Amino acid sequence: MNNKLIKGIHSTSNDDYQLNTITLLRHAARTFPEQEVVSRRIDGSLFRYNYGECYERVKRLANTLTELGVNPGDRVGVMEWNTYRFFELYFAISGIGAVVLQLNPRISADYLAYVINHSEAKFICVSDTLVPLIENIASNLKGVQGYIILSDSTEKNTLKLSPLYDYEKLIEDASKEYEWTMIDERSAYSACYTTGTTGKPKGVYYSHRNIYLHTYAIAMALQVEIKDVIMQIVPMFHAQGWGVFFTGPLTGAKLVFPGRYSLEEPAPLVDLLVSEKVTVTCGAPAIFMPMLYYIQKLPNKPDLTGLRMASGASEPPLAMMKGFWELGKADVVHAYGSTETTPLVTYNVLKPSLKDLSEDEKWELKKKQGLIVVGIDIKLVRPDGKEVPHDGKSVGELWIKGPWIAKEYYRDERSDEAFQDGYWKSRDVGTIDKNGYVKIVDRLKDVIKSGGEWISSVDLENTLIGHPMVYEAAVIGVPHPKWEERPLALVVLTEEGKKSLKKEDLYTFLMEEGSFAKWQLPDEILFVDEIPKTSVGKISKRDIKGKYKDFYIKSIKK
Amino acid sequence: MNNKLIKGIHSTSNDDYQLNTITLLRHAARTFPEQEVVSRRIDGSLFRYNYGECYERVKRLANTLTELGVNPGDRVGVMEWNTYRFFELYFAISGIGAVVLQLNPRISADYLAYVINHSEAKFICVSDTLVPLIENIASNLKGVQGYIILSDSTEKNTLKLSPLYDYEKLIEDASKEYEWTMIDERSAYSACYTTGTTGKPKGVYYSHRNIYLHTYAIAMALQVEIKDVIMQIVPMFHAQGWGVFFTGPLTGAKLVFPGRYSLEEPAPLVDLLVSEKVTVTCGAPAIFMPMLYYIQKLPNKPDLTGLRMASGASEPPLAMMKGFWELGKADVVHAYGSTETTPLVTYNVLKPSLKDLSEDEKWELKKKQGLIVVGIDIKLVRPDGKEVPHDGKSVGELWIKGPWIAKEYYRDERSDEAFQDGYWKSRDVGTIDKNGYVKIVDRLKDVIKSGGEWISSVDLENTLIGHPMVYEAAVIGVPHPKWEERPLALVVLTEEGKKSLKKEDLYTFLMEEGSFAKWQLPDEILFVDEIPKTSVGKISKRDIKGKYKDFYIKSIKK
Repeated sequence: MNNKLIKGIHSTSNDDYQLNTITLLRHAARTFPEQEVVSRRIDGSLFRYNYGECYERVKRLANTLTELGVNPGDRVGVMEWNTYRFFELYFAISGIGAVVLQLNPRISADYLAYVINHSEAKFICVSDTLVPLIENIASNLKGVQGYIILSDSTEKNTLKLSPLYDYEKLIEDASKEYEWTMIDERSAYSACYTTGTTGKPKGVYYSHRNIYLHTYAIAMALQVEIKDVIMQIVPMFHAQGWGVFFTGPLTGAKLVFPGRYSLEEPAPLVDLLVSEKVTVTCGAPAIFMPMLYYIQKLPNKPDLTGLRMASGASEPPLAMMKGFWELGKADVVHAYGSTETTPLVTYNVLKPSLKDLSEDEKWELKKKQGLIVVGIDIKLVRPDGKEVPHDGKSVGELWIKGPWIAKEYYRDERSDEAFQDGYWKSRDVGTIDKNGYVKIVDRLKDVIKSGGEWISSVDLENTLIGHPMVYEAAVIGVPHPKWEERPLALVVLTEEGKKSLKKEDLYTFLMEEGSFAKWQLPDEILFVDEIPKTSVGKISKRDIKGKYKDFYIKSIKK
Repeated sequence: MNNKLIKGIHSTSNDDYQLNTITLLRHAARTFPEQEVVSRRIDGSLFRYNYGECYERVKRLANTLTELGVNPGDRVGVMEWNTYRFFELYFAISGIGAVVLQLNPRISADYLAYVINHSEAKFICVSDTLVPLIENIASNLKGVQGYIILSDSTEKNTLKLSPLYDYEKLIEDASKEYEWTMIDERSAYSACYTTGTTGKPKGVYYSHRNIYLHTYAIAMALQVEIKDVIMQIVPMFHAQGWGVFFTGPLTGAKLVFPGRYSLEEPAPLVDLLVSEKVTVTCGAPAIFMPMLYYIQKLPNKPDLTGLRMASGASEPPLAMMKGFWELGKADVVHAYGSTETTPLVTYNVLKPSLKDLSEDEKWELKKKQGLIVVGIDIKLVRPDGKEVPHDGKSVGELWIKGPWIAKEYYRDERSDEAFQDGYWKSRDVGTIDKNGYVKIVDRLKDVIKSGGEWISSVDLENTLIGHPMVYEAAVIGVPHPKWEERPLALVVLTEEGKKSLKKEDLYTFLMEEGSFAKWQLPDEILFVDEIPKTSVGKISKRDIKGKYKDFYIKSIKK
């Protein structure tokens, strides 16, 4: 596609009819008012109502927000667990043309204050269990005109925030009649600030059009239909919980909100999965893993037949995918995306043409990020800006473009380096194979830049670790006077390996097992006793890079 | 929703990224190039290729059309059976910003010439088997600059059309490199002229935005996924074949085009259904019925497990739905729409809350038009313009609005009476029950207008026919000096009924079995020997209305 725009003749379709979030909930309340929404309270008990009752509360909320002075375009912060109240706020705030500012309780106080001030939030809705995080920074919040407490309890707390409103009281006192006005679909409906590795959070402001189209896309990917039961595990303050809960009102499927949960205590999530007969959920391996361990220790294993689990954030471990599969073919499906992409970019389904792969090959394939969803463009770009072929070998940075991909950060000069020609430069480096499956092989900062090409450190590491006499391996890019960088491998051998393995054996292994070309091989493989680790036990590439930064320069000078 | 539009703040999403038809085929060619497209030739043999090969031909077509002088906004007529060539033309013509003019070979020569001239078509693509229909009117076609022949045969025909191009030759000679330019999504991608009961055809011009959103909607309704095999039975010149074939490139599902077929010869359709393992199809009962009869006579019944059949145009007969169900639970699903609505408006799925209905109740429910799809607004409007409640009893005209509903006819002064406040006034009269199911009870011209309310003649007829001693019944609205109209029933009794049934018995039956209110009952029930029929054996309401038009005026004067 080039960057021009052509116009044909006008249509007779109602092209002015805007794609609005509230249309989804209006639909659910009209067509499936009886379908259930279940939400776990802080005390562990379950709150149950339905789309019809939910919609009435959302209309009351729209009235009360308007009366409080929330105008179209205003930002309203929400810091809340995955509950029906967060769900209501998504529709009420965006329904009146204002913006749901997603507040992550896990970021630092400084960053939290930055997000609230940068977005110029006018009101903050906050769970009573999270109030201290806001109280802590309240004196630094410049534009906030009031705080709304979200609480299961009717007790009045004496809080330091002022002026202070009670969510349930506001709803109770408001009229239930509300006439919606259509909103320009290019208006922001919600905002999420992405906290990368460096620098202040960057604002991604999602449009109504974006989330409406994304809702179709993720519902298609997850094959959601009215018979499904969706549990929203991904936090709703993180890229709108991957947008999964929006597929509830779209399809009429039952929704389950697990409230507050922790990685250390997966029991409530598993209980809900079983008791509510969940068929669709979403989460990172970091939460799916403890859920699986918990299930595996239960005396009576639950039957999870029909369950689809969209898994993102990192590669799903094979043992995890197989573990769930053994519980009634529960299907862990790898998806890829980020805050900038709403997030759905790829989703891993098995193409009919690959149905004859062996079982092992199918499991290997399931670890890839998957197929690009319809409507999204991806380019694999080399350091020199040229595209690389989709051969499963050539490595490039993923540039991503489409109706639900960001094209800038909100009021942020860092936009210039992160976007180009409408593409978001993901800083993820990967391949696309001839069947169309995307595989991320590295973060851009870790990939080895050699003579205008890229070499994946992760691919080299994984192949090395696959050798039976290799205990541990790390591969880094080391500055090189001629090639910019060249790979250097550090390898810890097993006791057996220390006795018999030679460097040459590993080079042969890399070429034969890993199919690496000669130019991709490390210039040097060093046998070491241990590899430096971070405080949480991960390999510390930063330390290794520091230690070996002059390795090739010195060795050539010698 | 009121008619204002509010703007919030701008988003950071790529809201300029337009929804274009070619995006769907680009996606299929990128992600599922190997997925098959099968098309039945005129001689009955099957042509097979895939999305990758199809896309290359579409790029060649885009080049050749451009070279012929087709510009953005130009209209290009297509008169063709359901083939891969029609599929290619849908994407190539709309891909360069021009408009696919759907030409119905079954309308009169006068109307055909009107459609081509009204749309100012610049080129006509026509099947060699349909050429006489165009030759016949060619001298009246004012703006046509050339004709492109679609043919399986390589023989050169001496045709009267000039200048004349051969589709396959054009493709062969064209370059396969083509860079698409983004098209304003509000531009028309295709046009279909609706031939109502009276007057000249009216032009419905569908936008790119319309069909893109509609494709999501119908894919969701039919639950299409990559594993499916879709057979396009509805003619592609009729409301773009209900838009079903677009779900192929959207999902990567295999497509089957049956070519030319007839109601009298359903064997080829059934053969394809079985041999290609079709799982999704679409059609009117007029074609599904002969298919079923044909299957029922086969010595070995095929297993149609997994087949979903979207059925429209008229109410699917219970015997037909049950007949297919017996062949492996093949599911006939009633849908509702029209040329003005792209067409999907409602789709009949069973809500989980109704799962405990009896089998008979479920079959009864399946005859209704179904649930309104997400994104579409419907009002039930009384003669005085007020909305009626959704109680399954109150009757109103369906007014329909949404992103894929027409808001006008193309350059046609009849738009004023057919559209209001963005709603299309369907002239269909129906009810919506408390579960959200729409039921069409009458055409507006047949419904009985009584004292500002409407009474369904069809409901009264169906109830009367349900009486064991009634052989046949017709109900019409007859002019009335006080109420505008009042119902009059004509009833043919069985031999048994002639001996014993009284008028009062039928009134009691209508109230008890049909739950009609007193004011809805016919003022008079006439026992007659026969009811006037049309040439095709249908009850002729026009004749009856003519004969009895003074019935209540006279009887009151007496």
